Amino acid sequence: MRMRNKPWAMEFLNENSNIVDTDGSYSGRIGDFFPESRPLHIEVGTGMGTFITELAARNPHINYVGIELDKNVMIRVVEKILEAELDNVRLLLLDAREIDTYFHKDEVERIYLNFSDPWPKNRHEKRRLTHETFLSKYRSILAEEGLVQFKTDNRGLFEYSLGSLNNFGMVFHEVKLDLHADEPEDNIRTEYEDKFSAKGNKIYRLKASF
Amino acid sequence: MRMRNKPWAMEFLNENSNIVDTDGSYSGRIGDFFPESRPLHIEVGTGMGTFITELAARNPHINYVGIELDKNVMIRVVEKILEAELDNVRLLLLDAREIDTYFHKDEVERIYLNFSDPWPKNRHEKRRLTHETFLSKYRSILAEEGLVQFKTDNRGLFEYSLGSLNNFGMVFHEVKLDLHADEPEDNIRTEYEDKFSAKGNKIYRLKASF
Ligand SMILES: C[S@@+](CC[C@H](N)C(=O)[O-])C[C@H]1O[C@@H](n2cnc3c(N)ncnc32)[C@H](O)[C@@H]1O
Ligand SMILES: C[S@@+](CC[C@H](N)C(=O)[O-])C[C@H]1O[C@@H](n2cnc3c(N)ncnc32)[C@H](O)[C@@H]1O
Repeated sequence: MRMRNKPWAMEFLNENSNIVDTDGSYSGRIGDFFPESRPLHIEVGTGMGTFITELAARNPHINYVGIELDKNVMIRVVEKILEAELDNVRLLLLDAREIDTYFHKDEVERIYLNFSDPWPKNRHEKRRLTHETFLSKYRSILAEEGLVQFKTDNRGLFEYSLGSLNNFGMVFHEVKLDLHADEPEDNIRTEYEDKFSAKGNKIYRLKASF
Repeated sequence: MRMRNKPWAMEFLNENSNIVDTDGSYSGRIGDFFPESRPLHIEVGTGMGTFITELAARNPHINYVGIELDKNVMIRVVEKILEAELDNVRLLLLDAREIDTYFHKDEVERIYLNFSDPWPKNRHEKRRLTHETFLSKYRSILAEEGLVQFKTDNRGLFEYSLGSLNNFGMVFHEVKLDLHADEPEDNIRTEYEDKFSAKGNKIYRLKASF
């Protein structure tokens, strides 16, 4: 999800500091970012935010945090949140590498990973959001019984992730190898999901816990 | 792999008692069934035996045991073994449920499951060859570091099996979600594999250990 660089992006995000944290202001105190204390779910690599904003609209009893490192893409999420007047989604302009210092231990109840960058080359394995380095960060912030839910159409990344999560000792709760064959009613399609499903790609989904 | 009932099947198998054990004669002493002592690999649900006979021809330093409960199907495997004059494949007319009493602890180094019956209904879950009841039998006869290798085109069964093996604590060594996309040179196609691949089905493969 590369977007044209918008020189005014940072300014726009900073003007909306009630919705986006661009500089770690809420690090260690994410609760203060929301009007009400509610269970916390996060999405890593939010893209344009179709998924998280729709999910938040459907689940007003959950607080959602979208984590994205591309400021140009994040503008679109801010716009969606403003338009839908959602008080239960907040955004972090943050590299996922930093989440274990941003959140407290056991603070997060669910982590969504949607269509994460595949990094197909072996030498880039460490950059995959399902590499063990990331898994150990997720483990440190996830509550007991907390779930990781991962969707992708990328076969190589899904094969890798099944192995990586299994080898890390994670417990699988669900594996779907063609999610749209019998699409669950509560499935929310992301931008990539719509695009790659239209191309005929299968959509994979995995739910797992530590 | 249902075949027309051949009234002479049992007689034929018994005439070839140097190749097939129909009555547990070699239970607890499988080594005596082979001219030479070699590492032992087994296949459960051998069908017509294309896979195991080709594998055995390629690997004369391994002893293979094909396990199949359908005597009519097994005739075809016997014929293949006779024709290729293989001294390193032997067959058991046996329900896989019995393998843990047939083999010794740690005696088997690899178990192949190819296109096992899917038993799609929930109430038949226990019959799937990747149900935990079977996994615990496999564990009891597999040597340490021993591998289970499973292929199927059945999406539901593969989804189930990824979960079942993971939940049993097995360690994944390889997951392939489209084996023929980049078919490994050493892949040997089974009868079902040929048939369902020609129909356009994806072939899945999993390698795992206990
Ligand atoms: C392929 S896009 C998918 C976007 C969206 N989730 C979807 O399904 O349509 C991946 C997104 O993850 C973001 N991303 C990649 N690595 C990240 C990281 N380490 N931390 C935060 N975001 C990341 C990228 O900027 C990009 O927007
Ligand atoms: C769908 S066929 C696949 C045959 C072959 N492996 C292939 O890939 O072409 C499954 C085979 O497993 C055998 N089978 C099913 N359950 C079994 C069990 N509990 N013990 C031994 N064989 C079994 C069936 O008789 C059948 O021949």
